[in-house]
Amino acid sequence: MRIDLNRAAQLLCDNDNILILSHQNPDGDTLGSALALTFALRKLKKTVSVYCTDGFPENFKFMYNGEKPCIPDTSEPYIVAVDVASPVLLGDKMSDYYDKINLCIDHHSSNTDYAEYTLLESDSAATAEIILKLIDFLGAGIDTQIATCLYTGISTDTGCFRYSNTTAQSHRFAARLIECGIDFSEINRQMFEVKSVSRIAVEQYVLNSVRYFHNKKCALIYITKDILHKTGSNENELESLSSVPYQIKGVKIGITLRERENGYKISVRTAKSINAAEICAQFGGGGHLRAAGCFINGGLEEVIQKISEAADKALSENEKLKKQKSL
Amino acid sequence: MRIDLNRAAQLLCDNDNILILSHQNPDGDTLGSALALTFALRKLKKTVSVYCTDGFPENFKFMYNGEKPCIPDTSEPYIVAVDVASPVLLGDKMSDYYDKINLCIDHHSSNTDYAEYTLLESDSAATAEIILKLIDFLGAGIDTQIATCLYTGISTDTGCFRYSNTTAQSHRFAARLIECGIDFSEINRQMFEVKSVSRIAVEQYVLNSVRYFHNKKCALIYITKDILHKTGSNENELESLSSVPYQIKGVKIGITLRERENGYKISVRTAKSINAAEICAQFGGGGHLRAAGCFINGGLEEVIQKISEAADKALSENEKLKKQKSL
Repeated sequence: MRIDLNRAAQLLCDNDNILILSHQNPDGDTLGSALALTFALRKLKKTVSVYCTDGFPENFKFMYNGEKPCIPDTSEPYIVAVDVASPVLLGDKMSDYYDKINLCIDHHSSNTDYAEYTLLESDSAATAEIILKLIDFLGAGIDTQIATCLYTGISTDTGCFRYSNTTAQSHRFAARLIECGIDFSEINRQMFEVKSVSRIAVEQYVLNSVRYFHNKKCALIYITKDILHKTGSNENELESLSSVPYQIKGVKIGITLRERENGYKISVRTAKSINAAEICAQFGGGGHLRAAGCFINGGLEEVIQKISEAADKALSENEKLKKQKSL
Repeated sequence: MRIDLNRAAQLLCDNDNILILSHQNPDGDTLGSALALTFALRKLKKTVSVYCTDGFPENFKFMYNGEKPCIPDTSEPYIVAVDVASPVLLGDKMSDYYDKINLCIDHHSSNTDYAEYTLLESDSAATAEIILKLIDFLGAGIDTQIATCLYTGISTDTGCFRYSNTTAQSHRFAARLIECGIDFSEINRQMFEVKSVSRIAVEQYVLNSVRYFHNKKCALIYITKDILHKTGSNENELESLSSVPYQIKGVKIGITLRERENGYKISVRTAKSINAAEICAQFGGGGHLRAAGCFINGGLEEVIQKISEAADKALSENEKLKKQKSL
């Protein structure tokens, strides 16, 4: 059942022995939201535990600060899931809890309404923005520790206010949180600047691999198993690398290849006028207008040839269309 | 003479035939501020020209949109300098104007008070924030074009709200500007993500050059003339590269070398507990606690040895101090 902020605050007031859950592969928003709500409810003298199936990653230490993920022994806690769009995102180990969530607080429009009560605000850039409003409703007050968690949630989910999901509300809340005296520049350094030695090594290989096609309007990079092995890095560290080719000036099609069994997983990003999904559909893939993916069987050079030919064709057609329009 | 917003607005109201000047090597703040003020004053039916000695760079096209840098023929315009801390920053070609600035609007605390009247707010992260307040005072209203210029000024001077100079005001103004319907995600993509082909090539060389010292607590990169030559890139494109070594996880001293005549210009960035200025002072340089610079004569390997030894010593001393404290 969908509920509003007022009702959600009431439910939290009426219950005690609360267990707050984050989604697996935790990011800044799910952890920041869970921790902020935990600290706020404790200020109201509630007994609260917070848990994530994958633990609390070390890079978020500045938020949890000694707090440990914990499921209480007591029977029947009041269970709150934050930033969790579907119960399976709680992780396999949590399957006993899938149908036991009392309250879900989320901003994903894809939320499956699996909880008894759901507070959903899909126009919020981050769940942390909803938690901030909820803490206001609860009257718990925002201290530096809570502000640190909420700011991290908003900043990470908006790419430090860069992405198009950022709203005026995101900025207004950031203003309030900054006024609580948080060290936001250090938070942003930790979240957006610090790179592992192995990540730097991967970047080195990846930049060495840049290939250009169609008069440098198409750029392609590849990450082979061999590169991962040589640099000792893992898949998680590659997250943002697929944006590299499309970041190059003048590039209209950016392509990233990642080696898998028997072939390459391909991600394609395109400029406004070129359909990425159409390019990927030729290889049985799909996606959105400007970001799509597919899989191509074969060795590196063979796969590069196939996908670069498809990109070449798309660019040629686009140029033809532009010429016709200008005539 | 220092004046407040009210008086600055009055001066602009009382005058016409206004020339607005940006500083040389224009950045997003000086150009965004100058253009926003130009467009706002024109809404009030003023005749306004805007000029920068280095022209309007192409990457800011989305702000000036057909507007051309121009000094009017008419005698004695009312001259306003924005984001210009000292008249020499107007550029050599503008030396006739150095003592003719009627009004200066700036946020640099180092402003030399060279203008007849100066509106200085050094607690503003960007001059664009002061211009926004001034436009409010003038009652000109903020349209999408003006909002685009002001947002660019704030975003670029705060590193997209990452740097410690960002204030609650920066965020609140960003919220207002976003509500004007600007394409802020595209602005941020242009300002922070798009890289030239030659910049990508330099990064490739630079990442290949990373060297680690002192158990990977010190990282060093170098940019030789040869690299610039091979990649066809210029000094402007190297701006943010000196932050690369300090971005590596675990690194406490990040060092960047740039080849000059007979030696290397060195920039040093350090973690909180290590004094960068002290390291650089050993070579006749100086700077701040956490960011300093110096010049060392000699060939590449010789210079690397000298500066890495100084870093090694600083790290050893720091570790000794830490040990003593924990005893």
